[in-house]
Amino acid sequence: MTVHDAAAAAKKASWGLLSVSGEARNQVLERLCHLLDTHRERIFAANRADLEKAETEALSAPLLKRLKLDEKKLLSLLEGLSSLRRLPDPVGRVTLKRELSPGLILERRSCPIGVVGVIFESRPDALIQIGSLCIKSGNSFLLKGGREALETNRVLFSLLEEAGKGLLPDSFCALMESREDVGELLRQEGLVDLIIPRGSNAFIRYIMDHTRIPVMGHADGICHTYIDASADADTAVRVTVDAKTQALAVCNATETLLVHRDAAPLLPAVANALREKGVRLKGCERTCALIGCEAATEEDWRTEYLDAVLSVKIVDSLEEAVRHINRFGSHHTDCIITRDDEAARRFFLEVDSAGVYRNCSTRFADGFRYGFGAEVGISTSKLHARGPVGVEGLCTYKYTLSGEGHTVAEMESGARTYTHRNLPLPEQDVWKAD
Amino acid sequence: MTVHDAAAAAKKASWGLLSVSGEARNQVLERLCHLLDTHRERIFAANRADLEKAETEALSAPLLKRLKLDEKKLLSLLEGLSSLRRLPDPVGRVTLKRELSPGLILERRSCPIGVVGVIFESRPDALIQIGSLCIKSGNSFLLKGGREALETNRVLFSLLEEAGKGLLPDSFCALMESREDVGELLRQEGLVDLIIPRGSNAFIRYIMDHTRIPVMGHADGICHTYIDASADADTAVRVTVDAKTQALAVCNATETLLVHRDAAPLLPAVANALREKGVRLKGCERTCALIGCEAATEEDWRTEYLDAVLSVKIVDSLEEAVRHINRFGSHHTDCIITRDDEAARRFFLEVDSAGVYRNCSTRFADGFRYGFGAEVGISTSKLHARGPVGVEGLCTYKYTLSGEGHTVAEMESGARTYTHRNLPLPEQDVWKAD
Repeated sequence: MTVHDAAAAAKKASWGLLSVSGEARNQVLERLCHLLDTHRERIFAANRADLEKAETEALSAPLLKRLKLDEKKLLSLLEGLSSLRRLPDPVGRVTLKRELSPGLILERRSCPIGVVGVIFESRPDALIQIGSLCIKSGNSFLLKGGREALETNRVLFSLLEEAGKGLLPDSFCALMESREDVGELLRQEGLVDLIIPRGSNAFIRYIMDHTRIPVMGHADGICHTYIDASADADTAVRVTVDAKTQALAVCNATETLLVHRDAAPLLPAVANALREKGVRLKGCERTCALIGCEAATEEDWRTEYLDAVLSVKIVDSLEEAVRHINRFGSHHTDCIITRDDEAARRFFLEVDSAGVYRNCSTRFADGFRYGFGAEVGISTSKLHARGPVGVEGLCTYKYTLSGEGHTVAEMESGARTYTHRNLPLPEQDVWKAD
Repeated sequence: MTVHDAAAAAKKASWGLLSVSGEARNQVLERLCHLLDTHRERIFAANRADLEKAETEALSAPLLKRLKLDEKKLLSLLEGLSSLRRLPDPVGRVTLKRELSPGLILERRSCPIGVVGVIFESRPDALIQIGSLCIKSGNSFLLKGGREALETNRVLFSLLEEAGKGLLPDSFCALMESREDVGELLRQEGLVDLIIPRGSNAFIRYIMDHTRIPVMGHADGICHTYIDASADADTAVRVTVDAKTQALAVCNATETLLVHRDAAPLLPAVANALREKGVRLKGCERTCALIGCEAATEEDWRTEYLDAVLSVKIVDSLEEAVRHINRFGSHHTDCIITRDDEAARRFFLEVDSAGVYRNCSTRFADGFRYGFGAEVGISTSKLHARGPVGVEGLCTYKYTLSGEGHTVAEMESGARTYTHRNLPLPEQDVWKAD
């Protein structure tokens, strides 16, 4: 089957999915949990085969780590599936109900986007994560995994297919394996509604440059922590250390520390705590004078280190911190450490980022941590979905209008008139605690 | 000033706009109303100059009609501005509030997108319509109008600028005049967040093909009216006639009529009513046999006539109607005429369009008619905004997270735990009737 045929079949399936109930979609997730649980040995065996092949090909250690699917990763997949199943149905929610004129009722209802194309690099667990988000939100999907995870992907995909059998329309998902397939997938405008790439910055940029289909993803994560004039010393140390060191090669780690000049006396303690964790510091002139470190250049303000390196700048005001973040940041996640409510309010308002934080680590920018069950990724674009994207980001909406033979001619003649009166929304599920 | 400089200045202004209150933005709209009202003679004089020039250049009649800005169009602009002012502030609305862990509170708040680039053809009133939507939603904007409306645009733009003086940041808007400027504008990725083109299909397609900035617009409007087996005869006639003839060269006019075979006896009455209004019919074989008309080819099902022509097809079932609409339509607006609630429910669920209607004219697909005050256009893409797009479509959101020194390390060690408990949303303005 060609990619075009698979995309056409997925499109047809997406129309069938519009009338599959939330209960049925949850049942698929439950089955998938069960299948993953009972086929773990088969999964691990396939993954071992991939790993052995990768080792003979001398793949890098980080790549091998991402490729590995072990007991712990499987457990976290199963937990993710359970919490996803417990989330309310994202489809069919009424978000607007309005009488346009007596007897003419407008509603806006959430519905699936349609067909999602997912392209991911080495991590095979991404196949289940994103696939399950698509199922929950009623989308059909085409998957293309990394070549190095071929065997693992085949097993995981067969379990996905099996889970949907009889409950979802045929061809609700398809697996692609060759590099040429990616090029084909990127040309399926009109059939594929959204592309979600998961991988390195260069990979995502390549995808964005080679398709006219909308792409949801983020290119850079240059996050800031800003220690304000009125910061609490202990909070400044704790939060900065976590934001920089809790994980290194991740998009929500802090890459630049800004410090208000009045908070500069806190800087030596922060620097010591970071250095104890093995972080190399690069500072502006004033920073170097205060704590003795390498000099930073303008290039550093634009750099996502993804490593144990942090650039540090002393600023004269909250305004200067905001200007620096809006200019050099990547509009991902930025934090202010402050005891001053007015400073926090201004920071929240004026920083142009998907996540704006106060007194907590930038590392919280994540779909699981936000309670979305899982995420397809974090979006730094402003349209459609911004920040961590869960099932809501895989939905769009439609307007329904019910009348009694209403015509525009009558409205224009004055025979009927507009009322534009909002009506109460029908009662809906409320997001609940786990 | 180059387009790049204007875009950079607009970007800076967009950050300043983040802290301009809704009251101040409404005051700008009020001033604009007043300025348009008191400068009407200046506006009409400029428009006469454009019209005279256009006549010497032998522009087509429809183009001249769109170019003309008369008393009636001005009045409708003023009414639009007043109703836009009365709408609640689309900025700063809290749409999610959740405790992630005790003391760690997540909020999702609406905020402006940033910088909007608007490119429109002959209609000068679009300048005020879209400009005012940008002001209401706190976006800065770059405008490029049609060459033929040069003088009118200059006057309208100077009034827009004047209205914002002292209330909005400098450079919150700019006017571009040359064709080369459009090419430059389309290259301002990173500075311009969204392009909104208004004009012909070919024009919008050209814009989409020549920029990497997201484009909001629609390419086609192939709308259907479907007369179901249980349709009421009078409703079928009234609604079909309005949907086809209330206006012709508009995207929300019906282009194809589908009729359930059990409702075929209604077709002659519908056909007569349409023919009385001068509509030419093109039908499938069964239609031709029943009412005697030109034969339609498959090409007709894909054609947006924008004229007094309607293609007609008799279908065997609701499913066939839905399949036809999803396959040949443009996912704009489609209507079912039925007395059967279950048929309507299925049609609402299964038709993959921005607007799905029952017993009313497809011509209702419009931002004014939906009570949005105005619209920047109607989107047939599925991402971000779908259907008529008003101020909400010019907003995005940001997540704010407030903690008390929360770190991810503590969460992972189990020292703190996630609760993911939704909190009541703060009270907000409710959309009110005019």
